[in-house]
Amino acid sequence: MRILLDAMGGDNAPDAVVKGAVLAAAKTEDKIALIGPKARIYELLAAECPDGIPQNLMIFGADDVITNDDAPVKAIKTKPNSTIVTGLNILRDGLGDVFVSAGNTGALLAGGLMICGRIKGIDRPAICSWYPNLNGGVSMLVDAGANAECKARNLLEFAFMGSVYMEKVLGRKSPKVGLANIGAEAEKGNTIVKKAYELLSESDLNFTGNIEARDFTTGKCDIIVADGFTGNIILKLSEGIIMHMMKILAGDIPAEMALKIKKLSDYSEYGGAPILGVSRPIIKMHGSSGPKAVMNGILRAGEYARQNVVGIIADQIK
Amino acid sequence: MRILLDAMGGDNAPDAVVKGAVLAAAKTEDKIALIGPKARIYELLAAECPDGIPQNLMIFGADDVITNDDAPVKAIKTKPNSTIVTGLNILRDGLGDVFVSAGNTGALLAGGLMICGRIKGIDRPAICSWYPNLNGGVSMLVDAGANAECKARNLLEFAFMGSVYMEKVLGRKSPKVGLANIGAEAEKGNTIVKKAYELLSESDLNFTGNIEARDFTTGKCDIIVADGFTGNIILKLSEGIIMHMMKILAGDIPAEMALKIKKLSDYSEYGGAPILGVSRPIIKMHGSSGPKAVMNGILRAGEYARQNVVGIIADQIK
Repeated sequence: MRILLDAMGGDNAPDAVVKGAVLAAAKTEDKIALIGPKARIYELLAAECPDGIPQNLMIFGADDVITNDDAPVKAIKTKPNSTIVTGLNILRDGLGDVFVSAGNTGALLAGGLMICGRIKGIDRPAICSWYPNLNGGVSMLVDAGANAECKARNLLEFAFMGSVYMEKVLGRKSPKVGLANIGAEAEKGNTIVKKAYELLSESDLNFTGNIEARDFTTGKCDIIVADGFTGNIILKLSEGIIMHMMKILAGDIPAEMALKIKKLSDYSEYGGAPILGVSRPIIKMHGSSGPKAVMNGILRAGEYARQNVVGIIADQIK
Repeated sequence: MRILLDAMGGDNAPDAVVKGAVLAAAKTEDKIALIGPKARIYELLAAECPDGIPQNLMIFGADDVITNDDAPVKAIKTKPNSTIVTGLNILRDGLGDVFVSAGNTGALLAGGLMICGRIKGIDRPAICSWYPNLNGGVSMLVDAGANAECKARNLLEFAFMGSVYMEKVLGRKSPKVGLANIGAEAEKGNTIVKKAYELLSESDLNFTGNIEARDFTTGKCDIIVADGFTGNIILKLSEGIIMHMMKILAGDIPAEMALKIKKLSDYSEYGGAPILGVSRPIIKMHGSSGPKAVMNGILRAGEYARQNVVGIIADQIK
């Protein structure tokens, strides 16, 4: 596999990305191509590898950067030499197997759609996000914010794509799908959710019914399905509460305990989450990713490509 | 004021309700009418008041109870002698000024609508909920679950009604209204939220723009406006995370700190929240209310009625 890595994406780029790439290169035989300003990346890489740059690390030049302040669609159109556009072009052309970035999520989504296109049969792609639970495990939240407006059919597609990913990449057999709702009963919720409940019930997925917000953190489901508006609120609210709680507790709890809580909003070890529904594999890492998170993102991306998740989704949706 | 109190509502009824009524009776000159099975309530009351039952406490008989398992609309129709139906009938007839209950929220809402009716000009009533923040203050969340489906106009009404309540009952001058959304910019969110942003901007309310989920716990706004689906998810998710966090931390943090965190999901001291939009004042207390919470609910209810919030809403919406 050849993994395309946005060297300039995220708050700690390019340093953390280069360091993460070096860590990953020692753990995989996949090829890792850093995409960024060649001279600068080479310099960082050389400094990081005094004994020589690993064979499976390479650099593809791209001199421009899409920042988080850039409007996604406009940026894709006006920054052809950005790392994201360059990476996605290479991905589309088959010269790379998966694109990994900690950069502008909206630009990754828009660029994925504009450059690589949708999987045929999938109406709307989704941004996935890991949702750690209090038993130390993790669920996947789909959609975490790509689609503020959804149809019931979209929620079914999210559940389906999430199930393929969780089964193939995380090895969860027959992953449990829960529908985020305001009650356990089938007749609860708004029109879209009620209709989605029906569609999910009729599907071949392992649909376990509605999941109430009180249970999001219990690890009851492998996949929590929501429209992008609700999903984004779930994600940001959870992060917000845990972050604020940490402030209240700071200094008053043992370090070990603080770490345990911090992990609840720490997605780094899960290695970024996929943008599902685009015709080529894309992994979005958290903007604050450090070297270890980048390493995990790269390793997970290799698995994502190797398991042919996109191909399986495309085949089964036909 | 005469406060009508559902003696049989909530997990700890009737004991906690009777105790709360006795506590409140000592703090107010308002009359408090306990609604429940006469003999049983009298017995509890007598036991609680060995030196005699306070002059401002009385009992209205009602022998049936609507439980949390009852379907709201059906229960209102088939249990005419329940404490909720009895209380709402008395309220409608003007023999009481406000109805307070820790019972079935759906039944209170349905009963309020069926028995007392809507405020003219208000399309949909809302269930309010207190949302404590990490600075020790509290915001009000409207709607916390009455309307799984909303129009933009409804959100404007929620904001308006919440503003009147916060100003009149909590004494917050020109209370700040935030619209729960997935981004700060005006163009963020789904169709309904975008339209609501416009309506709020054009209104006379102190609209401070969108509020992102990360800021719900910061006390940035006095009123957080959301459709009932989103609002209910916000409320239950917040409760869930804090509850689970407390489990993780149990025993590892100082008692004082634990209390501070527990307060974040403890609405008892705010004395129940109003159901706004019904033509007569109704306060819903948390199902798990103990005596102190009931006391606060009663005191707040007196203020709610005294400030003529419903009358002001009705006048201004014309």
